[in-house]
Amino acid sequence: MTETDWGALAQHWLDRLAACSEPGHGVTRLPFTPEHRAALAVLTELMEQAGLAVHLDAAGTLIGRLEGPEDRPALLMGSHQDSVREGGAYDGIMGVVLPVLALMKLRQKGLTLPFPVEVLAFADEEGVRFPTALMGPRALAGTFDMAALGLRDHNGIPLRRAMEDFGLNPDALPGLRRDASQVLGWVEIHLEQGPVLEMAAQDIGIVTSICGIERHMINLTGKAAHAGTMPMHLRRDALAGAAELTLAAETLARETDGLLATVGTLQVRPGAVNAVPGEATLTLEIRAPDDALREQAGVTLTQAAHEIASRRGLGLVTARTYVQPATPCSPQIIECLSKSVAAGNREEPQQLASGATHDSSAMAALCPVGMLFTACREGVSHHPDEHVPAAVMSSGIKALERYLMQLQTSASHL
Amino acid sequence: MTETDWGALAQHWLDRLAACSEPGHGVTRLPFTPEHRAALAVLTELMEQAGLAVHLDAAGTLIGRLEGPEDRPALLMGSHQDSVREGGAYDGIMGVVLPVLALMKLRQKGLTLPFPVEVLAFADEEGVRFPTALMGPRALAGTFDMAALGLRDHNGIPLRRAMEDFGLNPDALPGLRRDASQVLGWVEIHLEQGPVLEMAAQDIGIVTSICGIERHMINLTGKAAHAGTMPMHLRRDALAGAAELTLAAETLARETDGLLATVGTLQVRPGAVNAVPGEATLTLEIRAPDDALREQAGVTLTQAAHEIASRRGLGLVTARTYVQPATPCSPQIIECLSKSVAAGNREEPQQLASGATHDSSAMAALCPVGMLFTACREGVSHHPDEHVPAAVMSSGIKALERYLMQLQTSASHL
Repeated sequence: MTETDWGALAQHWLDRLAACSEPGHGVTRLPFTPEHRAALAVLTELMEQAGLAVHLDAAGTLIGRLEGPEDRPALLMGSHQDSVREGGAYDGIMGVVLPVLALMKLRQKGLTLPFPVEVLAFADEEGVRFPTALMGPRALAGTFDMAALGLRDHNGIPLRRAMEDFGLNPDALPGLRRDASQVLGWVEIHLEQGPVLEMAAQDIGIVTSICGIERHMINLTGKAAHAGTMPMHLRRDALAGAAELTLAAETLARETDGLLATVGTLQVRPGAVNAVPGEATLTLEIRAPDDALREQAGVTLTQAAHEIASRRGLGLVTARTYVQPATPCSPQIIECLSKSVAAGNREEPQQLASGATHDSSAMAALCPVGMLFTACREGVSHHPDEHVPAAVMSSGIKALERYLMQLQTSASHL
Repeated sequence: MTETDWGALAQHWLDRLAACSEPGHGVTRLPFTPEHRAALAVLTELMEQAGLAVHLDAAGTLIGRLEGPEDRPALLMGSHQDSVREGGAYDGIMGVVLPVLALMKLRQKGLTLPFPVEVLAFADEEGVRFPTALMGPRALAGTFDMAALGLRDHNGIPLRRAMEDFGLNPDALPGLRRDASQVLGWVEIHLEQGPVLEMAAQDIGIVTSICGIERHMINLTGKAAHAGTMPMHLRRDALAGAAELTLAAETLARETDGLLATVGTLQVRPGAVNAVPGEATLTLEIRAPDDALREQAGVTLTQAAHEIASRRGLGLVTARTYVQPATPCSPQIIECLSKSVAAGNREEPQQLASGATHDSSAMAALCPVGMLFTACREGVSHHPDEHVPAAVMSSGIKALERYLMQLQTSASHL
């Protein structure tokens, strides 16, 4: 096959997998459902064509293993099989198909690797069906909380029951924990879900870190008043204060490399055309590849909220409601992936942080992790229009193939 | 009676009138209801004590007339009897009680006026029961639209039927129109509904104009995006644009004497903690005592919206949804009222615009109008806590008394 054919082959398998979906727009494939079962059958067929030994673990993770020397630790690759509701045909599942095809390519060239490789298709990364996610990688890392088995889906079915109905034994989950010494590392390829690579006209980018996230609830209280009888200089307008804070967050993030800050919700009370707003409540989300940078931004914007409230005579309540630390990618994997991508490029591959969470976030508790991003059309994801061109997938397969070959010569340059 | 006693007497009558209310917090007295009927009985008793001839016109306006020379045009004074739901004991009704007491005071001093005076208690200024208001003054000015008789209240009762059940003949409304040559002018005293006079430690202020109002609906559309994967410099954040416009409106109004600008409502879509807002819809209300000033502000802020939208790559739809011109008070009445108030003050009385609409707005279609504002506690109105101290009402009665005496010597200085 030509290089182009490998991209087309990836698209062929992804089309078959996209058909494993609830009816409706786009792809809806939730964990431990008939659609999940159908996808496992397609993935098994693909993995077996690539010469992998396939089995399903107790977390519903489909594992295709290419055996190597018995005493060598394995390289783990993969991503998740599930989609959001009415999502696309690439998010997650492409990260299972591309490494399998890279292994198939090496096999066709008659190359063998001096270490085992496993490609994993985790059951649930999106967390759409149950109010939990990442069970597969957490089980491997030994960080899965068994209490989550009691969480229920929209129909009241507990996770434990859904797994049992799927033929799995949840009580075996603790036994999935891997010995870190038996794992070389984890490499995931995923679509970017943003416009950076497409705008830079690059097929493949190197992820430096998965951003940490913190969320704040900010409530400003002024004094509701008649918009006709309350003079401007005596107003305590909660919305005007919220507007200042919204722009302060935007300005700080624009001026700070790597920082993202978003005011995504804002409610105003009393909310009448002729009433000065007496109360405004907003959410502020901050993401950064570096925890210190994020923490500092949180402090800076909380201070800004206090300054604004004080100057405007507003009451202020702030609460940091959520914190998730950043996951830095392994410098060794970054370097090795960079060389693998650069070999096919006229220019240096773009390095970028991942603003979204991935299976890699949980795998980092087990081993060094690395990620490649593929460009995606117009940055769209979690939508039926989600698309990764075949040529981009071809570049992805080639980069993974080169990465495996580099490791072949020196597994220390993981 | 001492001057203080007159304020206490006003409070006495206002207490009796406050009892003419639906059960519950504060005062709820809607037009053409048993509570309205009870208030008319109290007002009739008060007016008759002051020597006025009382009758109810076809619009439900209670009119107490002090006869003067038959061929002289009459001075009209008064305000409205109705309240909002769970409102206060002063809004409107105080403007009926105080001029009656001023006439009572003149009568007790044995003074007569060389012109007739009528004190009017209009049925409905607040527009709470029916989606219309100001029927009483509009009938006098000949601007009442008979089609409004078909409008229904919350229980489906048409205005016409409510009036008929109250014993009124709506078909006689056109006949209420006054001949402008038979009216000297209209003078209304009303609580400020704002904090200006109280903060200036003045009992009584002179209204220069009733502000015109315009309202705009402004819709900004950007692109909803994942707050983690969309870089800051590529965002088209509709809320950030709305925040800029909110602050632009506030800044313009703060820097422009007499101008009020309020963003009272703001909705954000999709409205998720981790989503860059793709759409923001806000209302902008502008008030000014001068129509040219208000129109200019509307143009300036619409231009600002276009500039913000253009710079941020946002779609913009703006619509001016409501316009109500300003009602300037008569310079002659302003001058004469100013002298009347100044005579009791150590300093010049404060002149201020009324941001709220009043019966005077509709009376201006018939004759020159003027208004006095009384201070009110903490600027509160439309609330059970609404309060005008007896001493302030005493100052109001005195100002009205002096005004009538000035007119006595020269009706040309109306």
